Amino acid sequence: MLKFHDCVPCLVRQALDASRMATSNEEVHERTLRKVLQAFAETSLEQFPARLSYMTHTIVKRETGCPDPYFQMKQYFNQVAGSLYPRLKEEIEKMENRFEAAIKLAIAGNIIDFSIRDADTVYRTIEDTLSKSFAIDHLQEFREALTRSRKILYIGDNAGETFFDRILIEELPMEKVTYVVKGGPIINDATFEDAKAAGIHELVRVISIGSSTPGTMLDMCSDEFREEFLSSDLIISKGQANYETLQDSPVDVVFLLRVKCPTISRDTGKPIGSIILQ
Amino acid sequence: MLKFHDCVPCLVRQALDASRMATSNEEVHERTLRKVLQAFAETSLEQFPARLSYMTHTIVKRETGCPDPYFQMKQYFNQVAGSLYPRLKEEIEKMENRFEAAIKLAIAGNIIDFSIRDADTVYRTIEDTLSKSFAIDHLQEFREALTRSRKILYIGDNAGETFFDRILIEELPMEKVTYVVKGGPIINDATFEDAKAAGIHELVRVISIGSSTPGTMLDMCSDEFREEFLSSDLIISKGQANYETLQDSPVDVVFLLRVKCPTISRDTGKPIGSIILQ
Repeated sequence: MLKFHDCVPCLVRQALDASRMATSNEEVHERTLRKVLQAFAETSLEQFPARLSYMTHTIVKRETGCPDPYFQMKQYFNQVAGSLYPRLKEEIEKMENRFEAAIKLAIAGNIIDFSIRDADTVYRTIEDTLSKSFAIDHLQEFREALTRSRKILYIGDNAGETFFDRILIEELPMEKVTYVVKGGPIINDATFEDAKAAGIHELVRVISIGSSTPGTMLDMCSDEFREEFLSSDLIISKGQANYETLQDSPVDVVFLLRVKCPTISRDTGKPIGSIILQ
Repeated sequence: MLKFHDCVPCLVRQALDASRMATSNEEVHERTLRKVLQAFAETSLEQFPARLSYMTHTIVKRETGCPDPYFQMKQYFNQVAGSLYPRLKEEIEKMENRFEAAIKLAIAGNIIDFSIRDADTVYRTIEDTLSKSFAIDHLQEFREALTRSRKILYIGDNAGETFFDRILIEELPMEKVTYVVKGGPIINDATFEDAKAAGIHELVRVISIGSSTPGTMLDMCSDEFREEFLSSDLIISKGQANYETLQDSPVDVVFLLRVKCPTISRDTGKPIGSIILQ
């Protein structure tokens, strides 16, 4: 069984950062930190990172009393990504390998939380990603799966990234596509509001997983979502948490992600920074 | 009272790294991690980072059964720094502001654990440091203190860095100087062997603090060392841990350090990367 020791210091850091976003009260930061440390001291470290993350952020919400510590950050992501959308859309439309570029852009959008300084920094990181080759490249299989599928779920990841997802969605057979968001706030994950900010609701149907967990933990999703999921032919999965949680999916999944940390690097066998279409 | 919340995720990460240097046994990594998490959940976070670090590394040593997890790393630091010494010594001797450059070099040596890739990387970082101005610059006071002092303790920091300390020591009134190392292994701190590797024992007297703690916690040092300390006129203190632990020193202290983390940045009021002569 895999052990996710590296996730512990990372999530302890996240808990501290999140509690600071929730409140300026240092006593609350400390209480939250202690609860998270205690929980990690006792929990199994063989649980997938998304579950350890869920545990962490559940404690942060409870101890800080703030249901959405990342609210302001998500607004900022939407603003930055929104300001880049027209320019990127225009560039994509001029490209020869437009579909491939749109996929890379959707993956590149996943780094917005790493480079939140300003739109220019995000833009440069995106340009860099567009010039990269896929470390795992199942482009042809993806094309074929899109053609043969009648019902496609596109599972989004973070707020802001939704604008980049929109660019890819516009290259897909939109009549078959449903976009999936979280039922409520968890970390900086996209909710219905973030899909709406990017105008995705005007293009395709938007549904929620029916819970507020990182990734797509089918056992914690609503019955309605599970039915949607199981009746689909193809899942397009964005980001690391969905990659982890949809590994054993009963439905065909195409994973789009950027390798952001040592744990996923070890799992994919690809270096940090790689972009994967698998 | 200051609270050192930021040190928690950092030291949890250090505990994991150190346990991996001590053994490849993942069960031991996990047990060590849990013990450290438990200890942080319960300890006061108002203790100075050096004390939190001491707690952390005491647990790592006990749980892994390895008295010196950083042994190999320290050998490597000594090798890299040793290979750079002749070149740097030659450059310093040609410089007009030789004393100031030697101080900067001694501070720059403190980054060797951040850039352990190879000698070239270390060399470039050193060149960068030499071109920087001091963020806090008490050079004149330092000169005066050296002249009026009869007994000077130079408290070293890390293995490898000892070679850079040697360059500064060679610019000091050596007959007055005693070099101070740790009584035994703690993190990558210099012990007698590391002073010897740099040949410091041939230039000045080398003594130990009589314990294996980060920084210089006078309450945990030997009686002999405390007497040496209290009978000195001037302390030259290298690095962050000594900066923290010698804040309330009864003897005049000159601090030489590079700001490496947010906690010390907040405390000094200077950005990360700053070099300080205070």
